[in-house]
Amino acid sequence: MALNHQIREGDNPLITEEREKATFSTEALADELYGPTFAKRRRELSAAVLKMPELLDPYPHVFMDRPTKVANSMRKTVAVMEGASEIADITNRDEMGHLVCEVFGDDGFPLSIHFVMFLPAIQGQADDEQAEEWVQKAIQLQFIGTYAQTELGHGTNLRALETTATYDKNTQEFVLNTPTVSAYKWWPGNLGKTANVVVANAQLYIDGKNYGPHNFFVRIRDEETHQPMPGITVGDIGPKFGLNTNDNGFLKFDHVRIPRRSMLMRHSKVSPEGTYSPPVHPKLSYGAMIFVRATMIRMLAHSLLKASTIAIRYSCIRKQGEITPGAGEVKILDYQTQQHRLFTAMARGFAYWLVGQEIKQIYERIAEDVKQGNVDQLADLHALLSGMKSVVSFDAGKGIEQCRMACGGHGYSHASGLPEIYAVEVAGCTYEGENMVMLQQQARYLVKGVQKLAKGEELTSMLKYLGNNSNRRFRFAEAGSKIEDTLIQAMEYIARTTIQRVSARLDSLKESGLSDEDAWNENAVELTRASRTHTRLWIAVCFKDRVNRIQDPKIRAALQDILHLHLCYEVIDMSQYLLEGGYATGAQIAQVKDVLYKLLAKIRPNAVSYVDAYEVSDTELRSVLGRRDGNVYDNLLKWAQSNPLNNVEVLPAVEKHLMPMMKSAKSKL
Amino acid sequence: MALNHQIREGDNPLITEEREKATFSTEALADELYGPTFAKRRRELSAAVLKMPELLDPYPHVFMDRPTKVANSMRKTVAVMEGASEIADITNRDEMGHLVCEVFGDDGFPLSIHFVMFLPAIQGQADDEQAEEWVQKAIQLQFIGTYAQTELGHGTNLRALETTATYDKNTQEFVLNTPTVSAYKWWPGNLGKTANVVVANAQLYIDGKNYGPHNFFVRIRDEETHQPMPGITVGDIGPKFGLNTNDNGFLKFDHVRIPRRSMLMRHSKVSPEGTYSPPVHPKLSYGAMIFVRATMIRMLAHSLLKASTIAIRYSCIRKQGEITPGAGEVKILDYQTQQHRLFTAMARGFAYWLVGQEIKQIYERIAEDVKQGNVDQLADLHALLSGMKSVVSFDAGKGIEQCRMACGGHGYSHASGLPEIYAVEVAGCTYEGENMVMLQQQARYLVKGVQKLAKGEELTSMLKYLGNNSNRRFRFAEAGSKIEDTLIQAMEYIARTTIQRVSARLDSLKESGLSDEDAWNENAVELTRASRTHTRLWIAVCFKDRVNRIQDPKIRAALQDILHLHLCYEVIDMSQYLLEGGYATGAQIAQVKDVLYKLLAKIRPNAVSYVDAYEVSDTELRSVLGRRDGNVYDNLLKWAQSNPLNNVEVLPAVEKHLMPMMKSAKSKL
Repeated sequence: MALNHQIREGDNPLITEEREKATFSTEALADELYGPTFAKRRRELSAAVLKMPELLDPYPHVFMDRPTKVANSMRKTVAVMEGASEIADITNRDEMGHLVCEVFGDDGFPLSIHFVMFLPAIQGQADDEQAEEWVQKAIQLQFIGTYAQTELGHGTNLRALETTATYDKNTQEFVLNTPTVSAYKWWPGNLGKTANVVVANAQLYIDGKNYGPHNFFVRIRDEETHQPMPGITVGDIGPKFGLNTNDNGFLKFDHVRIPRRSMLMRHSKVSPEGTYSPPVHPKLSYGAMIFVRATMIRMLAHSLLKASTIAIRYSCIRKQGEITPGAGEVKILDYQTQQHRLFTAMARGFAYWLVGQEIKQIYERIAEDVKQGNVDQLADLHALLSGMKSVVSFDAGKGIEQCRMACGGHGYSHASGLPEIYAVEVAGCTYEGENMVMLQQQARYLVKGVQKLAKGEELTSMLKYLGNNSNRRFRFAEAGSKIEDTLIQAMEYIARTTIQRVSARLDSLKESGLSDEDAWNENAVELTRASRTHTRLWIAVCFKDRVNRIQDPKIRAALQDILHLHLCYEVIDMSQYLLEGGYATGAQIAQVKDVLYKLLAKIRPNAVSYVDAYEVSDTELRSVLGRRDGNVYDNLLKWAQSNPLNNVEVLPAVEKHLMPMMKSAKSKL
Repeated sequence: MALNHQIREGDNPLITEEREKATFSTEALADELYGPTFAKRRRELSAAVLKMPELLDPYPHVFMDRPTKVANSMRKTVAVMEGASEIADITNRDEMGHLVCEVFGDDGFPLSIHFVMFLPAIQGQADDEQAEEWVQKAIQLQFIGTYAQTELGHGTNLRALETTATYDKNTQEFVLNTPTVSAYKWWPGNLGKTANVVVANAQLYIDGKNYGPHNFFVRIRDEETHQPMPGITVGDIGPKFGLNTNDNGFLKFDHVRIPRRSMLMRHSKVSPEGTYSPPVHPKLSYGAMIFVRATMIRMLAHSLLKASTIAIRYSCIRKQGEITPGAGEVKILDYQTQQHRLFTAMARGFAYWLVGQEIKQIYERIAEDVKQGNVDQLADLHALLSGMKSVVSFDAGKGIEQCRMACGGHGYSHASGLPEIYAVEVAGCTYEGENMVMLQQQARYLVKGVQKLAKGEELTSMLKYLGNNSNRRFRFAEAGSKIEDTLIQAMEYIARTTIQRVSARLDSLKESGLSDEDAWNENAVELTRASRTHTRLWIAVCFKDRVNRIQDPKIRAALQDILHLHLCYEVIDMSQYLLEGGYATGAQIAQVKDVLYKLLAKIRPNAVSYVDAYEVSDTELRSVLGRRDGNVYDNLLKWAQSNPLNNVEVLPAVEKHLMPMMKSAKSKL
């Protein structure tokens, strides 16, 4: 019996023959990737959704214009909220997350900001009395909220936000105001048309003194009519690269008065008399950011693995060109260049996915510590996630584009699903902290590590390798060497030397007379590079540990091939750092390449089975090219024929414009 | 008086202060980039278009759904064809090209395939009698044609096309047929709804024998009604990543009979009795491909320079964060990371633009030679353009995405224009030959060069450097060394050694027992890498020669800064190849980086002036962020407010779905 569980009657034989080659159980790998309980629940949920037509799109969503997309997604929102409890455990975040993926894909659940940012904000920042008032209503969806922070002219630098909340002692109210065009709230998800309440961030002023940005609970649309409240201007910010089902919005306050108790007062308070009490634990606000970024890693990995699924399956259906003349056209997956594009993308996908799960667990452990008052590891995790968010969003984006291009012309069509996966995923380079800023944030932490080391202070476990000088040359392919250890040592060498070098460069720039800040800026590109090497090392180490903990020897072996490919690829990609310090020779890098090419050939027969094990349903995948059954061409034709431009045989504009033009050209003869 | 000619009253002072810093005349640089005559004509045309409202979009085209986009573009087509002769020399390809850019942007002129592929096909492949019948009518637009070659299941491998043209001697007709779903013609531009005739490529069969793919002139839609002709099924292939104004189409022939003289018979012929005569000069078909790819280089460069224009201008309007605490927020262009992203992208843009113009001239010279029967250099140019098309499309795409991301959140909005520039440009990685295939095509030519060298045969001038062994170590920063020469020598070293190494690897794979074809495939990734190094070298050499020929010393100096930045960036990007052979040391690479960082600082004050000199009008740029006047935020707000989702305050779907949901949640209490 075949080890791949996705074989069905009626499938394209070209993909069935791939599945029959599996050397591991795809179901067992799925259990490993999701945990056995959740793997089962995912399958059940996917099957249940298929039986609820109200949760599905009536026709491909890429055929819809924006207003139709938004309306369709609002319709499904109500259907999901009504039907979810029948099929899912609605208190289980993973189950609800999978349900949302099935029904909405990446970009369309109008309540995600409500549940992921708005609700946690009031849960975390409202005092007990306020929470009593708001939290239950939010959970029951008596209102829909969003989180309004960024402004038209201001992003990550909170201190520069211009929206003001001025306390009026006489009436015991705050006056919210948008003093300039650049102060419009801009970008909050589902702010434009959906939300009727917001948590808004504004500079708190009392008696002319600025106490910095604080959060306020504000109703922006009438409870009964959904019309904007007096003094509120709100709307949608317009079409975007992706995420077009989301009505990201703008918001202007024109001297809007809200009660004193609208300020979220768990941490800071303003008394009726206008006395300000600052928060006791300013650091605790880290938590939300860490949580969101940890979630992002898995989302980004998921996007990359979806793209890999589509491209690898399609590459077994598509035949083009001959390798040996006269032997017939081959599957495009048989070309080494195609394998190199796709398998390295898939390997990074698996690495990010499993590392993302590890981070989830680390986060939960540290969150427990924090509750006990122990915040030691919070800074480590915060720094790491700044770097990780940047590296994963960017490299996953590159991988998705490779998957798209590897599908040739059809990859460019929305029928592939790939353009949308890219456009949604790559937003992750920008939101939740722009990547260049994030990399420098981590770089600060790394440079501090080097400074501590110089002073002989102890480093946290994450930075211990900075002080390790035992590996001084590349031992790859030496007798008895373990490939993964030698590659990880090489990555340690890379990270250690780039971080040390960039720290030394910083010192020498300062010595040359630059201020600390100017020296930093003069060094910023190198600092981002060092930050990336540290992140990639950490991902590699974590991925390796995770794979080697697997009990089932066949599943472990299957993922070891992926691990080795990943490590070879990362080392080759950063080989200049190995070479410039004399750690490795060109001949050794060539050896790593040879190993990588052998791994491509080894992975080839299992390629479809790897992505099958990741188990993305056709409903979620939304891709004609990536269909499980491999029946691509017939369905591409059907998809194309049903697109709105084919609603009429002769377009009105052809009759109105082009036909008279051609007629008149003839009459001129 | 300021040297930048784009300063106007009412501009944002943040951008005016940039323009006042120019150290060269932007008008003089524009003259250099376009040639003085055409630079002047471009400005006149841009101004003329602004006075013809029928050539403009009534509102931003990104707010239109696809059918509206297509209709709008058909309307403008007729307006352009009627009005062009008043403002432009319609026989001048450059002038018409600029006019199309102004009116349609990148993706929307429904006659571009007609003029760029269909018309040249009949001009080049029809015999005199046929040309007499068709060419003049095509020029007058009595019909609109397209070029139908690729099929649903078949792309670059022409021999695998499935469409058949079977000669029926009895009626002296060809019977065109689409035997399978995968044989549907798929992708031809403007085939879906616009074109009423095609040049279709089909396997020619006479008496059961296949004579390979040939071209046929076929009417697909009725001259009077525009309905599909009997036996024809035609339609639009659906929405895509970009190019959505184009009705790329599908086409099926159901035993469609066309007269014998519908076959394009300049080169091959079929007599009434069914006797086939093959072409005399099979190689001549190179010409069209070379022409299209040479044009592509300039188009891709243009996209990258448009993106650079937007991002660099916006980076002087946007302020965010402080470099020195308390000194106030700075323009984001003052961050080194921002300069590094944007100036290296701009430098590649200028390199590709100027090299693209050189190639145009080389093409014209070689085309003259070919007319004289001299085809010596055709293979060189064909190989080079295969590589160049791949390297430029991919690296320009990366640069555009860097520009987009450098604009933060607003870069993700369609208000920036950047998502569309990327989506259109990156299609160039796929059309006109998939990049991996193209790189290998050039690699074949390079490997042959090495083989010739080994046999002591003479190499063409393009490959002469393969035999040059004089530069054995990096002389960068040595006293008296000229920076550009040492960097080009380093790039020669890189290209020479990678090509030689990959040839040797090919030999050793064959010696190990692989067939030629399998050895090639086992080496394919390395071959593509070698191919890229050769292309980048050629671009660098050509760019350097071009810049150093400039007469005006200030303009030469201005472009030399860009040239040096480009060379440093390329060498750093490929530094592993320098290091692995011991040609350079890590310390030397660090020196190149230091020079690069100094160049970023040197270019910074002129940054806006460089892109201003490239002179893309606001009409063409279609970008709120990149507006010449720098008045970004007010116009972003206006743009957003006018988007269709804001047509009503409360969306019908909110009333229908979300409001009842919230009401019912409240009633449940």
